[in-house]
Amino acid sequence: MIESRETVALFPASFDPPTNGHLDVARRALQIFDRLVLAVAVNLEKQGTFTSEERLDMLRAEFGEEPRVEVTAFQGLTVDFARERGARVIIRGVRAMSDFEYEFEMALMNKRLYQEVETVFMLPSQEYMFVSSSRLKELVQFGRDVEEFVPAAVAKRLRERFSR
Amino acid sequence: MIESRETVALFPASFDPPTNGHLDVARRALQIFDRLVLAVAVNLEKQGTFTSEERLDMLRAEFGEEPRVEVTAFQGLTVDFARERGARVIIRGVRAMSDFEYEFEMALMNKRLYQEVETVFMLPSQEYMFVSSSRLKELVQFGRDVEEFVPAAVAKRLRERFSR
Amino acid sequence: MIESRETVALFPASFDPPTNGHLDVARRALQIFDRLVLAVAVNLEKQGTFTSEERLDMLRAEFGEEPRVEVTAFQGLTVDFARERGARVIIRGVRAMSDFEYEFEMALMNKRLYQEVETVFMLPSQEYMFVSSSRLKELVQFGRDVEEFVPAAVAKRLRERFSR
Amino acid sequence: MIESRETVALFPASFDPPTNGHLDVARRALQIFDRLVLAVAVNLEKQGTFTSEERLDMLRAEFGEEPRVEVTAFQGLTVDFARERGARVIIRGVRAMSDFEYEFEMALMNKRLYQEVETVFMLPSQEYMFVSSSRLKELVQFGRDVEEFVPAAVAKRLRERFSR
Amino acid sequence: MIESRETVALFPASFDPPTNGHLDVARRALQIFDRLVLAVAVNLEKQGTFTSEERLDMLRAEFGEEPRVEVTAFQGLTVDFARERGARVIIRGVRAMSDFEYEFEMALMNKRLYQEVETVFMLPSQEYMFVSSSRLKELVQFGRDVEEFVPAAVAKRLRERFSR
Amino acid sequence: MIESRETVALFPASFDPPTNGHLDVARRALQIFDRLVLAVAVNLEKQGTFTSEERLDMLRAEFGEEPRVEVTAFQGLTVDFARERGARVIIRGVRAMSDFEYEFEMALMNKRLYQEVETVFMLPSQEYMFVSSSRLKELVQFGRDVEEFVPAAVAKRLRERFSR
Repeated sequence: MIESRETVALFPASFDPPTNGHLDVARRALQIFDRLVLAVAVNLEKQGTFTSEERLDMLRAEFGEEPRVEVTAFQGLTVDFARERGARVIIRGVRAMSDFEYEFEMALMNKRLYQEVETVFMLPSQEYMFVSSSRLKELVQFGRDVEEFVPAAVAKRLRERFSR
Repeated sequence: MIESRETVALFPASFDPPTNGHLDVARRALQIFDRLVLAVAVNLEKQGTFTSEERLDMLRAEFGEEPRVEVTAFQGLTVDFARERGARVIIRGVRAMSDFEYEFEMALMNKRLYQEVETVFMLPSQEYMFVSSSRLKELVQFGRDVEEFVPAAVAKRLRERFSR
Repeated sequence: MIESRETVALFPASFDPPTNGHLDVARRALQIFDRLVLAVAVNLEKQGTFTSEERLDMLRAEFGEEPRVEVTAFQGLTVDFARERGARVIIRGVRAMSDFEYEFEMALMNKRLYQEVETVFMLPSQEYMFVSSSRLKELVQFGRDVEEFVPAAVAKRLRERFSR
Repeated sequence: MIESRETVALFPASFDPPTNGHLDVARRALQIFDRLVLAVAVNLEKQGTFTSEERLDMLRAEFGEEPRVEVTAFQGLTVDFARERGARVIIRGVRAMSDFEYEFEMALMNKRLYQEVETVFMLPSQEYMFVSSSRLKELVQFGRDVEEFVPAAVAKRLRERFSR
Repeated sequence: MIESRETVALFPASFDPPTNGHLDVARRALQIFDRLVLAVAVNLEKQGTFTSEERLDMLRAEFGEEPRVEVTAFQGLTVDFARERGARVIIRGVRAMSDFEYEFEMALMNKRLYQEVETVFMLPSQEYMFVSSSRLKELVQFGRDVEEFVPAAVAKRLRERFSR
Repeated sequence: MIESRETVALFPASFDPPTNGHLDVARRALQIFDRLVLAVAVNLEKQGTFTSEERLDMLRAEFGEEPRVEVTAFQGLTVDFARERGARVIIRGVRAMSDFEYEFEMALMNKRLYQEVETVFMLPSQEYMFVSSSRLKELVQFGRDVEEFVPAAVAKRLRERFSR
């Protein structure tokens, strides 16, 4: 029965803000999995640049019309949220070598905590491979335009945030 | 239409011989993709330990009964074979950090050659993470038992090959 | 004279808290060196999860009965403490690649500061290789059981600390 | 009983030829372990620059007078030879990051094959950290002097070998 | 026209304080480029050990007499400052592997922001390769002498700062 | 006297064949150094895809008109050739992390062999970062077009070579 094989993939990240790299990985994931949960990982102890609600807005502006995508936020362990949503896959975008070690460790721990979930690593397009949210904020702070690296609406929010 | 979303994943490797690490990745892939093509990559310039036919036999012994798995061999570029088989996903198992750099490079090249295919990286279980085909052959040559790392039938073939 | 060859090994770490990985390295070190000094590295500028005294208690609960082990705390440079204790060996457990670069740098500096001391790197068992103190605290905070990764007494203390 | 704690360390390498880096690690090991077995790993399938006998000669020239050192050769698995010699420690010198990944993998496999043996990693002095046997041969082939990197007797043998 | 080929190189760093490693890279850069701008990168959000003015003093004490060197400070993006100064080259000293990943990412971003500038990576002498400003401060705090790693005047300032 | 500061840079590589990545690094080097020596490193023990003469032809086709570039071949140690040509700089293009370790080691050895020469590392454009000569040959062998990655004349030669 093919329905039983429908695969839900969870893509958890801080998305503070979402970059073209994130969006690219999400779109690629949507090509190969049946459903995609874009989940803002909320860290109560660390204040971000944008609130969870703002991050959700930015993600919804990109994926709100896509019926196979759910945009949401979560606290707690990623594996627990994966289980709650029935996700058999956790997607991690790896930008460059430095990311991988940490990801590797987390994937092994997650596999131990929840046998039924698989972590799969995906690469963004080469042009986004060296772009991170924190670098983008730095650029905006120094008056640079970042529309090349984020959606126009995100660029606008970054400018507003850092010109204040 | 759900049929259009059926995802075929190609898992290309030399499988010379298949190890528990390979089989573990294949089984995990089968949990999250609709169909799996296990493909022995044939390299005409480099003679392996086992012939393509032997490698196919060993894979079929493990997956021959599984209707969603195809066991086959191919020459040429992986992306060309992916396209031929209608695979939207290329699976690569990463054993440890050292593998990743090469894989990364190949994935980017493949994306450039064939935009519609995604390479996804999966981890074997931790217990298989440091086990390679070449190390296993070394163990067998020195009289060690390797049933812990490969299926019993593969262990038998390895013993036969290296006791000759 | 065999006495003159007795080798004292210093195993310095923050042990905040000690994990099974730490204990595993310590037990292995005890198999190959004559005496072992387990030393809680006290960092006055950074408050940990547990006090030095609590960390010492947790270590003593595991090694208090072993006559060849001393459990202690120190401030200052590791090499100075090694010299003070007559330790010819500094043991460092390396969990994964990411640790090694930093360790490498520190070992070279230590060799320069104190020629007579050798840093040796040891691996924990594979099952503890991807387990860190900070990850464990995260698990406990989200209600997970960590008895698989630390002694029962340590798990209890972690639960008490993070349920407060 | 102190005798039961005598620790034999095995330092296996191809030593083709021994460099100052090898000798440095060996001397450091001798400071912290009771006995040291310097063992030329013989690979029947790969012809080296020097014969096993020549390599043993070069090692004996350096350590022949040291009663706590045995210079020998072996074929087969390192762990089997460690067991045969009663060595509880396998020493590996790590020259730079690139070595470590392979060593890591081998150490984990060795631990699995023979629980009682520990692999410890040691660093050569910083000045020898970027010196390898193969690079030295290249230098000699192009007429460079390498006495800075190997004992005088080894330099002489290298010159003889490559001027022929 | 040879003047048009005069190459200005910018060496930006926090220099908090300058170490022998920094000075070594700067002197090497001066051998191969026509002019050198040593630029203290001022980070308003993070208080350093020394003020910008103190860092400039320490650099001037070393390079003040050299007509081809300018010692200065800047805020903002390195590429913007490079453009302002007419620098076609940004020099980065890489101490060890760990630095490189971050540097790589920054160099690619900089190339994207300002096509005319090239980032070149240079190595300090092997003896300074494992020496960082932060490690040196740690040594001084614990009463160690660091004159081996920094100019005497810098060592004096470090002692004054940390004995207060 | 500005003439005395003219900097000659040596860019040694096997160039078998030259790729757009090589050419890109060479052009960037020409922006920042006064003269550039493009030098085919001849390895008598290893037969390449193209002869030295063919590689020189391919380089000359790209740089033959540029008065500040010399295209040549050499045997022996790079530092010896640098000295012979009066080059104060050796340029190495680093494609990705994996290259760097080896380059690092070679640069340190070269600095030891010839104090007056500096190795500088440069990055190719991001689009060429994951392209290697060996991968390109593989593509051509399987009938792929590689004009995206090499000059048209090089692509033609590759096709001729591998269709034979």
